[in-house]
Amino acid sequence: MVEVKIALLGGTGDMGEGLALRWVKNHEILVGSREASKGMRVAAEYLTKAKGFYGDSMKGTIRGMANPDAAAEADVIVLTIPYEYAASTIISIKDRLQSSQIIVSPVVPMVKVNRGMMYMPMVEDGKIMSYAEALARELKDVPVIAAFHAISAKKLANPSLVLNYDVPIAGDDEKAVEVVANLTREIHNLRPIYVGPLKLALMIESLTPLIINVAIFSKIKDASIAFVE
Amino acid sequence: MVEVKIALLGGTGDMGEGLALRWVKNHEILVGSREASKGMRVAAEYLTKAKGFYGDSMKGTIRGMANPDAAAEADVIVLTIPYEYAASTIISIKDRLQSSQIIVSPVVPMVKVNRGMMYMPMVEDGKIMSYAEALARELKDVPVIAAFHAISAKKLANPSLVLNYDVPIAGDDEKAVEVVANLTREIHNLRPIYVGPLKLALMIESLTPLIINVAIFSKIKDASIAFVE
Repeated sequence: MVEVKIALLGGTGDMGEGLALRWVKNHEILVGSREASKGMRVAAEYLTKAKGFYGDSMKGTIRGMANPDAAAEADVIVLTIPYEYAASTIISIKDRLQSSQIIVSPVVPMVKVNRGMMYMPMVEDGKIMSYAEALARELKDVPVIAAFHAISAKKLANPSLVLNYDVPIAGDDEKAVEVVANLTREIHNLRPIYVGPLKLALMIESLTPLIINVAIFSKIKDASIAFVE
Repeated sequence: MVEVKIALLGGTGDMGEGLALRWVKNHEILVGSREASKGMRVAAEYLTKAKGFYGDSMKGTIRGMANPDAAAEADVIVLTIPYEYAASTIISIKDRLQSSQIIVSPVVPMVKVNRGMMYMPMVEDGKIMSYAEALARELKDVPVIAAFHAISAKKLANPSLVLNYDVPIAGDDEKAVEVVANLTREIHNLRPIYVGPLKLALMIESLTPLIINVAIFSKIKDASIAFVE
């Protein structure tokens, strides 16, 4: 296993907690926040929880800091932020990124409608574009990988739970896809499933509102998906 | 179990065969085609296969006819046609429909891109609309239910196979949703999952290209999906 330094931007939220508690077993985790002090405080909380789960077998650690500092220092940067804060977060970190890094986007543009949740990707000249694709266009040289759209943050945050889910991954950079696939495999028992270039991220971003609607209308809570043969 | 008369429009294709072979166990099946003679020929083939599977326990039968005649006679009309032929098929049957009928749409607008398959819903004034929603708007009084987007036609066509999949269903008419959910349950071991009003069909139509991309890029063939708690 190759140890990587992972930044969780906006990592003080549910999804950030889940990924921090899973990956700290083997990796160094940087919890980014808009305020460094909040990042530090929450990182300390996560670390206490993580020690409770892993004890001495834990190889990584968890530190908190401001989003741009976490982004600058990490090998892999995961955008564990709601869509509403994505643009301002990207603006704040953009100048600190390097092409050797990997950005992972579970971000999904969606809106609450009268009943349920609706996927709302960008439309440009009549053409639909996923958030991940739009982000890649903005970041140019830094590879963007779309992943982790349909994982229950609640279940992720309990490392004693085995997650028998599939994680669809889209991306153009083969090496970056492999890094994210490996990080996925380390979360017991997630199975990474490559679903093609970033252009096809549309079909995995729409899984987030689908899962939410399954919870709303069919009372299947904190579910994820699996591909069944 | 309430026996219903089911029209499979364009039912001479893979998806039509699968649904015919599954539902004929309990229901009367009308295989629609652009040419009545082709519908009749294929229906006879299906019927021979079905008798081989079910023998004397089969309650239904299978007849072939032109699409408009099948549509006029049925309680439930399933559009087992590729998107490319959907518009012309709808035009041919529109005048024969009644508000007491139910239209089931597994139809998905999608295009083959350089690598993989891309969901391509309608865009109107910058707003994205699923095929099922556009169809409901055109048909006005006839309830449209979106379902069966992610079922493997190949596995459906072998009634000895147990399908441990979930079938997400979207629709506005509660009674129609219940009819389609019941028809889904009759296919061993499909589980219907209501995912909200037809406005939310976008997120299930996009499952079809997703499943195709999973086959292309990850070699998981003839898969479907399940929601895992």
